[in-house]
Amino acid sequence: MTKWVYAFGDGTAEGRSEMKNLLGGKGANLAEMANLGLPVPPGFTITTELCTFFYDNKQSYPPDLTPQVEAALGRIEAVMGCRFGDVADPLLVSVRSGARASMPGMMDTVLNLGLNDRTVEGLAKRSSDPRFAYDSYRRFIQMYSDVVLGVEHHHFEEILENVKEDRDVRLDTDLTADDWKGVVAAYKEKVLHELGRPFPQDVQDQLWGAIGAVFGSWMNQRAITYRRLHDIPANWGTAVNVQAMVFGNMGEDCATGVAFTRNPSTGDKEFYGEYLVNAQGEDVVAGIRTPQYLTTAARQAAHAALPAMEEVMPAVFADLDAVRARLEAHFTDMQDLEFTVQKGKLWMLQTRTGKRTANAGLKIAVDMAREGLISKEKAVQRIEPSGLDQLLHPTLDPKAERRILGRGLPASPGAASGRVVFSADDAEAWVGRGEKVILVRIETSPEDIGGMHVAQGILTSRGGMTSHAAVVARGMGRPCVAGAGDLRIDYRAKSLKAQGTTVAEGDTITLDGSTGEIMLGEVPTVQPELTGDFATLMGWVDQIRTMKVRANAETPLDARTARRFGAEGIGLCRTEHMFFDPQRIIAVREMILASDEAGRRHALAKIQPYQKDDFVELFEIMDGLPVTIRLLDPPLHEFLPNSEAEMEQVAKAAGADVAVLRSRNSQLHESNPMLGHRGCRLGITYPEIYEMQARAIFEAAVQVSKTSGGRPVAPEIMVPLVGTKKELDLLKEVIDRTAAEIFKATGTTLPYSVGTMIELPRAALAAGSIAESASFFSFGTNDLTQTTLGMSRDDSGPFLEVYRQKGIYEHDPFASLDQEGVGELVKIAAERGRKTRPDLKLGICGEHGGDPASIAFCQKVGLDYVSCSPYRVPIARLAAAQAALGAHSDTTA
Amino acid sequence: MTKWVYAFGDGTAEGRSEMKNLLGGKGANLAEMANLGLPVPPGFTITTELCTFFYDNKQSYPPDLTPQVEAALGRIEAVMGCRFGDVADPLLVSVRSGARASMPGMMDTVLNLGLNDRTVEGLAKRSSDPRFAYDSYRRFIQMYSDVVLGVEHHHFEEILENVKEDRDVRLDTDLTADDWKGVVAAYKEKVLHELGRPFPQDVQDQLWGAIGAVFGSWMNQRAITYRRLHDIPANWGTAVNVQAMVFGNMGEDCATGVAFTRNPSTGDKEFYGEYLVNAQGEDVVAGIRTPQYLTTAARQAAHAALPAMEEVMPAVFADLDAVRARLEAHFTDMQDLEFTVQKGKLWMLQTRTGKRTANAGLKIAVDMAREGLISKEKAVQRIEPSGLDQLLHPTLDPKAERRILGRGLPASPGAASGRVVFSADDAEAWVGRGEKVILVRIETSPEDIGGMHVAQGILTSRGGMTSHAAVVARGMGRPCVAGAGDLRIDYRAKSLKAQGTTVAEGDTITLDGSTGEIMLGEVPTVQPELTGDFATLMGWVDQIRTMKVRANAETPLDARTARRFGAEGIGLCRTEHMFFDPQRIIAVREMILASDEAGRRHALAKIQPYQKDDFVELFEIMDGLPVTIRLLDPPLHEFLPNSEAEMEQVAKAAGADVAVLRSRNSQLHESNPMLGHRGCRLGITYPEIYEMQARAIFEAAVQVSKTSGGRPVAPEIMVPLVGTKKELDLLKEVIDRTAAEIFKATGTTLPYSVGTMIELPRAALAAGSIAESASFFSFGTNDLTQTTLGMSRDDSGPFLEVYRQKGIYEHDPFASLDQEGVGELVKIAAERGRKTRPDLKLGICGEHGGDPASIAFCQKVGLDYVSCSPYRVPIARLAAAQAALGAHSDTTA
Repeated sequence: MTKWVYAFGDGTAEGRSEMKNLLGGKGANLAEMANLGLPVPPGFTITTELCTFFYDNKQSYPPDLTPQVEAALGRIEAVMGCRFGDVADPLLVSVRSGARASMPGMMDTVLNLGLNDRTVEGLAKRSSDPRFAYDSYRRFIQMYSDVVLGVEHHHFEEILENVKEDRDVRLDTDLTADDWKGVVAAYKEKVLHELGRPFPQDVQDQLWGAIGAVFGSWMNQRAITYRRLHDIPANWGTAVNVQAMVFGNMGEDCATGVAFTRNPSTGDKEFYGEYLVNAQGEDVVAGIRTPQYLTTAARQAAHAALPAMEEVMPAVFADLDAVRARLEAHFTDMQDLEFTVQKGKLWMLQTRTGKRTANAGLKIAVDMAREGLISKEKAVQRIEPSGLDQLLHPTLDPKAERRILGRGLPASPGAASGRVVFSADDAEAWVGRGEKVILVRIETSPEDIGGMHVAQGILTSRGGMTSHAAVVARGMGRPCVAGAGDLRIDYRAKSLKAQGTTVAEGDTITLDGSTGEIMLGEVPTVQPELTGDFATLMGWVDQIRTMKVRANAETPLDARTARRFGAEGIGLCRTEHMFFDPQRIIAVREMILASDEAGRRHALAKIQPYQKDDFVELFEIMDGLPVTIRLLDPPLHEFLPNSEAEMEQVAKAAGADVAVLRSRNSQLHESNPMLGHRGCRLGITYPEIYEMQARAIFEAAVQVSKTSGGRPVAPEIMVPLVGTKKELDLLKEVIDRTAAEIFKATGTTLPYSVGTMIELPRAALAAGSIAESASFFSFGTNDLTQTTLGMSRDDSGPFLEVYRQKGIYEHDPFASLDQEGVGELVKIAAERGRKTRPDLKLGICGEHGGDPASIAFCQKVGLDYVSCSPYRVPIARLAAAQAALGAHSDTTA
Repeated sequence: MTKWVYAFGDGTAEGRSEMKNLLGGKGANLAEMANLGLPVPPGFTITTELCTFFYDNKQSYPPDLTPQVEAALGRIEAVMGCRFGDVADPLLVSVRSGARASMPGMMDTVLNLGLNDRTVEGLAKRSSDPRFAYDSYRRFIQMYSDVVLGVEHHHFEEILENVKEDRDVRLDTDLTADDWKGVVAAYKEKVLHELGRPFPQDVQDQLWGAIGAVFGSWMNQRAITYRRLHDIPANWGTAVNVQAMVFGNMGEDCATGVAFTRNPSTGDKEFYGEYLVNAQGEDVVAGIRTPQYLTTAARQAAHAALPAMEEVMPAVFADLDAVRARLEAHFTDMQDLEFTVQKGKLWMLQTRTGKRTANAGLKIAVDMAREGLISKEKAVQRIEPSGLDQLLHPTLDPKAERRILGRGLPASPGAASGRVVFSADDAEAWVGRGEKVILVRIETSPEDIGGMHVAQGILTSRGGMTSHAAVVARGMGRPCVAGAGDLRIDYRAKSLKAQGTTVAEGDTITLDGSTGEIMLGEVPTVQPELTGDFATLMGWVDQIRTMKVRANAETPLDARTARRFGAEGIGLCRTEHMFFDPQRIIAVREMILASDEAGRRHALAKIQPYQKDDFVELFEIMDGLPVTIRLLDPPLHEFLPNSEAEMEQVAKAAGADVAVLRSRNSQLHESNPMLGHRGCRLGITYPEIYEMQARAIFEAAVQVSKTSGGRPVAPEIMVPLVGTKKELDLLKEVIDRTAAEIFKATGTTLPYSVGTMIELPRAALAAGSIAESASFFSFGTNDLTQTTLGMSRDDSGPFLEVYRQKGIYEHDPFASLDQEGVGELVKIAAERGRKTRPDLKLGICGEHGGDPASIAFCQKVGLDYVSCSPYRVPIARLAAAQAALGAHSDTTA
């Protein structure tokens, strides 16, 4: 018999925190807290395997589920001393989702389940609080109808608004027990009217309805989108947690709250969180009432008026603070907690590894390693490499003028500028047209996830630091300012008013998610400081990793940035990028359109001095570090003139006839330029081009090595798009001959090496023979992906999205290496190349060189280095260290 | 010590015919004839290894060559009883090239070497014929100066013409000994004037000069071109043959000739050849004098006036006829002979396997097998598969009207029509523009080789059946009419006059190379008869081969042709070819430009009945043979309207807005359509297209299987451009579902299979998992070559020619499979696929399926079948049989 149900509570549990795959994150940690003896309301978890069964069997359950659920429910009843559906003393339960990976707000939850027209009276009597009982009942009807029965939320909102108007009250808390009875009656009538059948009174029906709805919500559109954005496989499934209700809304000795064991925004070691007296958890997260601080220190720092929990209920706060210490020590990571206080007693409803900003993640990992809580290796493994991106990008210039429009909570750090839009749909549409946007909402909901993902930043006028907007934005690494209550947002007019200023849709604003400031216009930014915790962590990273990290760079700016970020050389200098300079492009065009070698040489002679200067500057900046220079690669027609005026310019420079040039121009057209006359094919047909480039490289190398007192310049010359050994041989001969000429003329000899890109399947297969002539291979995985998959990066957009949706490729193969296909060719080439030449240097220089999963693959196949864009160098360093440690970050567990 | 020199003559030889790689064809066979005791003038061969040494060492010789040459020369002197350079009785020698593969006329030859001002007198006395001696001397000076010293031929021609004018004679033979003395003096003066130094008198200098010139001629432009056209590697090198001169021009009891042991044009078993009395060999080949027939029968058949050799010198003829029988029996193949008769004695100067027309090759092989001279397997191996092409193409319709312009010798069979050009350069230029041309020349020379190669046919007004034009044309399989003496060809006017008609450059004529007829205009053609020897040979072929041969066909005409040529099924039916039909293209365009699935389905419903009819007809023709149908493959934009009028047509048919269509049209543009939204990507994004095609296939199969009494229809449905198992799974589901629906609706069930093209490197690598879902693989080696090599077939022209010249690819990889690269992927896929599914059916359907070398590779990796264009089916059958025999044809040895 399969065990589908795991019970917990009363100091014991059938599960453990290691069982996340089976019990989901919430269920596994509830079990763990129960095992630790922490106060957890009793409950049980239905496993993720049941979810898989459910979807594999036309949304039905196995026959042995019901007895297991009944038995587990019996255990809750025994612990709580009351019975589910009992009219005198009813047990109420919550039914919540809980997947392996946290998917906040994506799936459904039902609270207060077990209430009906008769048990509500029992609850009223037992609690001596009819107002509380009927408030709970109406909350239950509202939530259950929405989640399980599909009667939309707004129907109930309208009824409630009408009742409040009738009674002339502003807050829910001003309504009396009788008022709520009236609301309940109206709610039930609305359900009957909408569905043609009454709201279910049988508590078993209620329970199974809620369980089915939670499993069903695994496949709702929000959840599917979230999984796609976060690379969560659909077959993981969710668990369902059924747990005895505890109430934070039974009076002034009750409360509910969320907390982080450290500050998730800054990483500071301080107890961080919010609570509300006499409220249910949903009230905090929804951001409807403004929550209060937990600690006195935090309240004072924020100059907040309402008292901290530490002040209002010091004994319970002390309990909570002890739990905090216990959980962080136990899980050795910052925890995100949910709790409820019922009549002065603390109940823990959830603990999980807390989401944090990249900055906080860095600080927490470094602090914990210093505190001795975790090892340095563990600290390195903790940091999500892609999160570093946030730390490496510019922040607002502190010296720039700021036209402050308003201020909200610093909900997710970082600076963002963009044009204002007022809906998620608009955000997606505008970004689709290439705009950068700031999404402005009164508050956000899970439906807004797509728009939040594409926005530069998010601004809300309602909700706290743990509101939906804040939590999601931090998870995404998007800057967010939340709860900016002074703003007047008008969706219909598509405008935002603050301090007498009106901001219309399309106007540009800037957010500072670290301070909560909202500014008019675009505020200039400055480079980040790469010191402190960052430098400490990167020091550990560099001790651990075994692969070198280089940068793809050709401009002096890129090269300097690369060095600042710790690059150990240039892995790819694309010489053609130097050809587009306006001073040179005419000569380049003249070269391409020349009808013979003499014409080409004439034009190349004009380009050479510039090209030499390029390399002089690059060699000087790199100061002896290796520089891999790729000879001309793209199809020549990429350089060609587009307009008649440009054509005439070239004709004039070349002293040639425009008509002749025009005809040559159209001759150069190709049906599939990716597979055309490019790469080393240019060098084979027009050796004089590569000769000129080799000359420029060697002249520059000789000059720099003479003037600089630094390490000797050692260029690595790379021939692109090689498919056969013979191609490399012919071109190596040109390079070696040119080197010999210049060494002879200058009386200087320098070390240099000649290698090749491996970017065609044929080259990978023929790597054994190519390695006879190549000193190094650099895997050009962009082109290798295009040819291996037969898929043009430029043209794959329209179908690749469908491919990902249908699960054909789990990741975009142009972003993360296709290990089964392209990866096998890399492996074959590495093996065959090393067999021929054991000291063959191997690197990667495609986009994948900056992708952590691909870097792990590179480590596995034994590459010597990865090369990526300068801003990704620290990410690659970290990913390389993690790859060396043989494991991935576990911060998203 | 390396043995560089191999002697032969006087009944023995150091070499053998098997040593062709070392001695070249001519040298090896001279040795073999000497060993057989045939009358061969003594001589020696300097090996091809020396040629390699020569080019590897800056055109110098090894020190041990000179003593070896001196020793071998001594042997000739001993046999001949005279000494090289002896003034009383000088030995004269010829110096000839002789490569491993025959390269007729491509390299240099020097005759009569050893004459100088003093030895010429000795020769005159010994021969008692001063006229002969001085004629020989002037021939030597002319030839040596041209070949070795670089003094061009025309200088000497002018002198000779002047002397003949002075003496008022027409023929060389009318000049006296004194006349020739004068010519010799004038020649020597010309050489002195041109070179500034006298003609060399030292016979040793002469000998080494000639040897060097022959080795040097291996790298002349003609030879390089010839090797490229015939795929002969440059590193093979040539040998040099030095041989005692015998003279066919010492009087009326002297003669020289060339002969074939069977008729090289028809294959008939008859002694075939030509001779000239009192002439040197060059006189026959050059086509200056019209040669006479060897046999009485041939003379009579041709109604020729001049007597046959059989009549003029019956005893020598009998000797020759005996040699003929001996050589054919010894070499078991038709031989091409050169002989000289000196004063009534027969000397054999060369034997080699004779070039023949495809028709003759077929007849000779079949006849020899029937005669018991060779086995059937040997007969099958003898036929060059590519030569079959000639037999399979149409011949002139015997019933068509022919406007006969003239008649020449039927020098190379076959029919050809084209526009007249008068120079090889013009031929190449016109063909470059897409014209078909007939090259018309007075006579051809090795310089014309390029033009002959591109022409449809060749016509000359001078020269016999063994003239340059005739020999080369037969080797190339080009129809040729030679020696049409009634034609007046005017190069300057670019015109051709015959029977009062003037044909100008650009006019169309037709040649019948089998009859010698020249016709005005284009004469219609008929299909060839595939009976007789052809059918006999193909019967043997089919017994021997183990691979099946299918055809690539989609039209009823192609399918019928394929069956007529023996195809055992259709290996590739490209459904998109059916979409271009004018009746359908509008609906196809409507489908493509539809903005949603409903719109596509609406248009597809219009196409489906047509598509079903296509398959009904195809299944009926193929009568139960397997038919592999590839679902839609090309990028959709290939079908798009180009003009505004077409666009409006589509808009009308679809009831859509032209502007919307126009924008969708431009959306579909791709930068690299080869790698774009095509193949199964269309099926994944628009499953309704493949569903329509599957529906059409199954409905047609059900209908045909009900109406025909023949074998059941078993379609093989092929999904193109698959890269992952998942793609195939998703589309197989569509196909299987459609099949089930139709089988249910019609109450019929049919066997069918679903497989995939392997045409992406990724598919080859993932073949193990793809084979879980595929019943068969068909290697689409066109696209697999494009992706593996990263080379677009459409765009590779400009550089691929340079690549071949530089030896990067030996063959065009789109014509003959790149075995190192693409071949390895085929091998990997075959192995991995068969490991998963041992009964996986494997075939190839790219262009390579009709290429003999590629077919041999397919046999080696264990494919079940090859599929090629209908006209290549017999070639593929033959190549498959040869592959099964594990060897290639040896007819070009």
